[in-house]
Amino acid sequence: MTKRLWAEFLGTFWLVFGGCGSAVLAATAETPAGFPAGIGYLGVALAFGLTVLTGAYAFGHLSGGHFNPAVTLGCWAAKRIESAAVIPYIVTQLVAGIVAGGVLFVIASGKDGFDAVKSGFATNGYGDLSPHGYSMLSAFIIETLLTAVFLWVILGVTSKRAPAGFAPLAIGLTLTLIHLISIPVTNTSVNPARSLGVALYAGSAPLGQVWLFFVAPILGALIAGFTHNALTGDDE
Amino acid sequence: MTKRLWAEFLGTFWLVFGGCGSAVLAATAETPAGFPAGIGYLGVALAFGLTVLTGAYAFGHLSGGHFNPAVTLGCWAAKRIESAAVIPYIVTQLVAGIVAGGVLFVIASGKDGFDAVKSGFATNGYGDLSPHGYSMLSAFIIETLLTAVFLWVILGVTSKRAPAGFAPLAIGLTLTLIHLISIPVTNTSVNPARSLGVALYAGSAPLGQVWLFFVAPILGALIAGFTHNALTGDDE
Amino acid sequence: MTKRLWAEFLGTFWLVFGGCGSAVLAATAETPAGFPAGIGYLGVALAFGLTVLTGAYAFGHLSGGHFNPAVTLGCWAAKRIESAAVIPYIVTQLVAGIVAGGVLFVIASGKDGFDAVKSGFATNGYGDLSPHGYSMLSAFIIETLLTAVFLWVILGVTSKRAPAGFAPLAIGLTLTLIHLISIPVTNTSVNPARSLGVALYAGSAPLGQVWLFFVAPILGALIAGFTHNALTGDDE
Amino acid sequence: MTKRLWAEFLGTFWLVFGGCGSAVLAATAETPAGFPAGIGYLGVALAFGLTVLTGAYAFGHLSGGHFNPAVTLGCWAAKRIESAAVIPYIVTQLVAGIVAGGVLFVIASGKDGFDAVKSGFATNGYGDLSPHGYSMLSAFIIETLLTAVFLWVILGVTSKRAPAGFAPLAIGLTLTLIHLISIPVTNTSVNPARSLGVALYAGSAPLGQVWLFFVAPILGALIAGFTHNALTGDDE
Repeated sequence: MTKRLWAEFLGTFWLVFGGCGSAVLAATAETPAGFPAGIGYLGVALAFGLTVLTGAYAFGHLSGGHFNPAVTLGCWAAKRIESAAVIPYIVTQLVAGIVAGGVLFVIASGKDGFDAVKSGFATNGYGDLSPHGYSMLSAFIIETLLTAVFLWVILGVTSKRAPAGFAPLAIGLTLTLIHLISIPVTNTSVNPARSLGVALYAGSAPLGQVWLFFVAPILGALIAGFTHNALTGDDE
Repeated sequence: MTKRLWAEFLGTFWLVFGGCGSAVLAATAETPAGFPAGIGYLGVALAFGLTVLTGAYAFGHLSGGHFNPAVTLGCWAAKRIESAAVIPYIVTQLVAGIVAGGVLFVIASGKDGFDAVKSGFATNGYGDLSPHGYSMLSAFIIETLLTAVFLWVILGVTSKRAPAGFAPLAIGLTLTLIHLISIPVTNTSVNPARSLGVALYAGSAPLGQVWLFFVAPILGALIAGFTHNALTGDDE
Repeated sequence: MTKRLWAEFLGTFWLVFGGCGSAVLAATAETPAGFPAGIGYLGVALAFGLTVLTGAYAFGHLSGGHFNPAVTLGCWAAKRIESAAVIPYIVTQLVAGIVAGGVLFVIASGKDGFDAVKSGFATNGYGDLSPHGYSMLSAFIIETLLTAVFLWVILGVTSKRAPAGFAPLAIGLTLTLIHLISIPVTNTSVNPARSLGVALYAGSAPLGQVWLFFVAPILGALIAGFTHNALTGDDE
Repeated sequence: MTKRLWAEFLGTFWLVFGGCGSAVLAATAETPAGFPAGIGYLGVALAFGLTVLTGAYAFGHLSGGHFNPAVTLGCWAAKRIESAAVIPYIVTQLVAGIVAGGVLFVIASGKDGFDAVKSGFATNGYGDLSPHGYSMLSAFIIETLLTAVFLWVILGVTSKRAPAGFAPLAIGLTLTLIHLISIPVTNTSVNPARSLGVALYAGSAPLGQVWLFFVAPILGALIAGFTHNALTGDDE
């Protein structure tokens, strides 16, 4: 179990540090001459996906490469992971997210004028805290829906009948795609560890909304996990 | 057949919701400070391609991963799918597109001031409704041509002599490439289910042009499907 | 030979139509509201690479997937293709490039105000015709150098000791990388068929410079082709 | 050994020329009409990653595809390369970086008004020379951390239990991800050969800071190299 948890810790750290780090440090940077050199939502979407793609190729053979409590619960619902591992996985993921947020906070603070609360620090939100003002209902629907599709893809590409070796590629790029769609709505979570990991450093407002980014992703993951095997005929 | 149609439903839903969703929600978003953070045509092109890449890796082993009536007809012309499956596939794809458009409409409506008709809602068009004013003739030629190449690629990469496992990657990235070329001309269809799925929610003008995005893609797909095996020597 | 030449025709058409098409139609498009939605040099670089990635997966098993006279000559120098095929391949590629340029011209003309000469029509150039004013010497060095590396990569990834199946991916992404570096210098050629295919439609000035985009890429390709096997120990 | 060093020379040349070349030539280019067509930090991040992805697919079977003194030292710490090869590898990499910087300098000089010192010439830096004003401490932490993760990924994806053939893809995209996060902080090194290769041409200021881009990456690489096998159970 130690090796599996080390892999989950490192992978989740990478996801939260890399994804949120690209958002905090690089998303909207302009050159002194005013060129919009920052990576924008497209670059952040790519960064989140690449954390999972690279982490899953590197550490997935140790732990399965979940890096996300919702994924662990969805895999449990689809009988891909034993019940005894669920709590250790989730605790490890949440701790890794918080550590990643802390390291990112230290690095970001090395720039004059950095203010985690004012900048948002890559937190997720709805309503007033939605990047482009989407309602709580829109946020709930899209987080539930995208996490459900995320799990159907994960369970599909890791099925025995899918081409071997391509699962980390497909899963990582699914996370990129999810971000391409939904950053303007909620800043994209689909992962409670990612949401909590940065919310702790950005004041009380994002922390007050973090419940939705536990409930909706977990709901979507469980729906997908409980339905996948029946729909596809997988009884692994 | 149920499992195959479930796979086509989910994959087509993902294509229309993910591709059009990225266009509607994220393409032209600016930060409050005016940074052009939106994903632009490049991000939308990537999103459309990734819906197919990820959907085909996840569900392609169940249904072949068409997610597009033109693809189904082209594969039928090339004898890659039995005639009895064509109508069920196409009906499923059209329904999935309409459902995806509806869910997207609900989510997009969660932002104050959203107006599907005024925003275009990611519909396809020519002439006055072409994103950058291209004529009906240009639209017809490019939709026919790009769908034909799309099918030649699909039939080529799924031939027995192509490297195994890479087909979803190549097909998805072909759809990205098609969008990189043609979003300014027609907003890119090459897929009647994608065109109809959003046109129903955006007023009468786009709906009046949707015929072209049935005729041209299907024409291109059939040309490619009927010529592929002779040109390549595949008699599968 | 017919099937091989058909594959080279279609692949080269795809390269020139797709790569130059993305540049002509989509590179610098702005939305009516002024958002810079166009795909920029990054999108054009991706498009060129994806034409080769997708074309090579789809048609590479038929012809080797050269789509470029310089590649054919470099492969000939490295003894990867028989001498009798060189001229038919190159003629086919040049014709395909010219056809692609013509189809693109027709489509682009469907927009009011299109002017191939004034817009440049994605032609290559140096000095006054370099996109950002680079000298003929810089243009010559970079085209020679990048084509040489392109060929070393192609010959390396198609060697028996490289991982099977990944060659089209690596070759396509190498072409993307080449464009990421050199679009501002020469608009990037490394391929005489791509240069000639659009120069014919854009007035006398680009045509007067097209010689460099034959000489430099072919020189680079031959250098790489004649040195590769000795340097790597491949005697295939 | 000659073939291995040739592969390291060419791969490192490609990394420094391609990555820094995209930054110097293409990152912030605007069209005459003012469209921000340059590839930005996202394009530079992609370019660096693609140099390694393509170089490793092409030459990795000859030398292991390090292209980076920190990688060589990390692999040595993890017992993946024999001690006798370490110094020849590192010397070759440093020389290749310097040659690449020189060739890039010649090409960039072909544009009127080019000034390597004033433009920065893609050098790495902290404090006043950090692209967006990050402190030396932030620079040191992020370079150490990212190089450590880079090595854990490299050692993980080249382990016997990881899917074969995908290592160059995963390693290259990890370098892209690293750049997506950290270009604004240090312009991203994680590679002493890349830092030295351009610092020599850009005046005394960047050269005075180049020590950090030796110390921090090497420190991170050694930490990862010495811990990887124990953490994962690899005793290869």
